[in-house]
Amino acid sequence: MTIQDSGPNEVPTWLSALKFDDQGLIPAIAQDAESKRVLMVAWMNRQAVIETIQSQSAVYWSRSRQKLWHKGEESGHFQRIKEMRIDCDGDVVLLMIEQIGGIACHTGRESCFFQVLKQGVWETVDAPLKAPGEIYGDK
Amino acid sequence: MTIQDSGPNEVPTWLSALKFDDQGLIPAIAQDAESKRVLMVAWMNRQAVIETIQSQSAVYWSRSRQKLWHKGEESGHFQRIKEMRIDCDGDVVLLMIEQIGGIACHTGRESCFFQVLKQGVWETVDAPLKAPGEIYGDK
Repeated sequence: MTIQDSGPNEVPTWLSALKFDDQGLIPAIAQDAESKRVLMVAWMNRQAVIETIQSQSAVYWSRSRQKLWHKGEESGHFQRIKEMRIDCDGDVVLLMIEQIGGIACHTGRESCFFQVLKQGVWETVDAPLKAPGEIYGDK
Repeated sequence: MTIQDSGPNEVPTWLSALKFDDQGLIPAIAQDAESKRVLMVAWMNRQAVIETIQSQSAVYWSRSRQKLWHKGEESGHFQRIKEMRIDCDGDVVLLMIEQIGGIACHTGRESCFFQVLKQGVWETVDAPLKAPGEIYGDK
């Protein structure tokens, strides 16, 4: 069964396996399919999941802006979907992706997880690959 | 500054960098430090984070049982902390771990992410390494 097999009001079987929280959201991890580095975590609502599968490019729900957010729409740093997984409880999505531009983080770094706890201090272990102003056109 | 430097009512600086949600929880990803496979996602409250750092072994908050859950306490499948990271927003924790017993999932699989979306169907791509009854003593 593919998503196209469903009528407009019908929830495809694969989608009904996902458990959205009381705000209609599910966390999604983006992991680099090659390096296996965890790049970021964002949230998806039902429509974001559907658009991600249809476009084969990550679409999230921005909680701060309260709207769908096609990752890369401003930065060009799209995330091509290689594989989508869910966990045993169906309440977390794992995206294996190709990160276009090699930058997932809005700070200009490859990964959002660039701070490591060392002797009780968060140490920044990665440098930005690009300045945010360069990415978002705020030069 | 280490956690031991703080008095009983003082929140250590590193801990105050974490943003807990309105239920006092933060999602935590456990990733195998060697293979880089994402093994599971669970939730932590403030106390779980503190006990994880103190014990260097993952402690989560069980939302279903509403209590702290030292991962491995029943199964023996403890998770030794190699590194703790946070993301740029401070609202997700990433644990790089050694998975004792090689099994993170309660289904007896290495990872909870054993279902892949293929042609609109969730396909199980990993077999259990042990039967759950064998792990939890329900023989």
